[in-house]
Amino acid sequence: MFEIDAAFAATSHAIGDLALSHVRLQADARFPWIVLIPRRADARELEDLAAGERDVLMEEILRAGAAARAVAEALGRPAAKLNIAQLGNITPQLHVHVIARRPDDAAWPAPVWGFGVAEPYPPAAQATALAAARLTLGL
Amino acid sequence: MFEIDAAFAATSHAIGDLALSHVRLQADARFPWIVLIPRRADARELEDLAAGERDVLMEEILRAGAAARAVAEALGRPAAKLNIAQLGNITPQLHVHVIARRPDDAAWPAPVWGFGVAEPYPPAAQATALAAARLTLGL
Repeated sequence: MFEIDAAFAATSHAIGDLALSHVRLQADARFPWIVLIPRRADARELEDLAAGERDVLMEEILRAGAAARAVAEALGRPAAKLNIAQLGNITPQLHVHVIARRPDDAAWPAPVWGFGVAEPYPPAAQATALAAARLTLGL
Repeated sequence: MFEIDAAFAATSHAIGDLALSHVRLQADARFPWIVLIPRRADARELEDLAAGERDVLMEEILRAGAAARAVAEALGRPAAKLNIAQLGNITPQLHVHVIARRPDDAAWPAPVWGFGVAEPYPPAAQATALAAARLTLGL
């Protein structure tokens, strides 16, 4: 049975569910950052999905990119670049990071993983970010 | 017209061409590391590819994962995990990293980008790695 790893609850906020993936907003106001978690039990790598599911995931990555751009825009820091990654070295459950980046963000041009310490969203900004993501994703 | 950014020539070795992507071996013996560069002029993000091209890229990512595992195996350090990423903060031409990771590798569990200094392959190991990648990719 599919269950979301508890590590995600501690570090992100639920946005909703797409056809394949559960979608979350990373709890880090430094970066507009969406996490996709395909709802398939025991999946750890892309190769654990069926080919058709991978194509759905690719389209959900595109939609998450649009959502990350919308969050960035809503927070007044439009994205210059997307960063997309499937890592899982620390939390092995299959998940994909989709992050809006800017040359003036805290970590640029380095990747965001392991960079400094997450900064929680102030409540109003968190509501703005979640609303922008949900509107873009139709959730 | 599509041309490979000169930055890739300086940091990687050509493996060959798949249907969509030019494939390279990162010149860093610390990590079995394949780079896919879709042969589409001016592409910087996944959204710059057509939907059908993205599906081809997804399958080429899977094949590159198998190739990275084969390189790791041929070098006597079988992979425990794949890391896959499309970043482009430094070299904007669209490219996807596919890296075989192990808990005993130099950067684990951190991502490899920006970690320490690349170590060139000794010539015999480079030949072994390129041969393993080409055999797996049918190149």
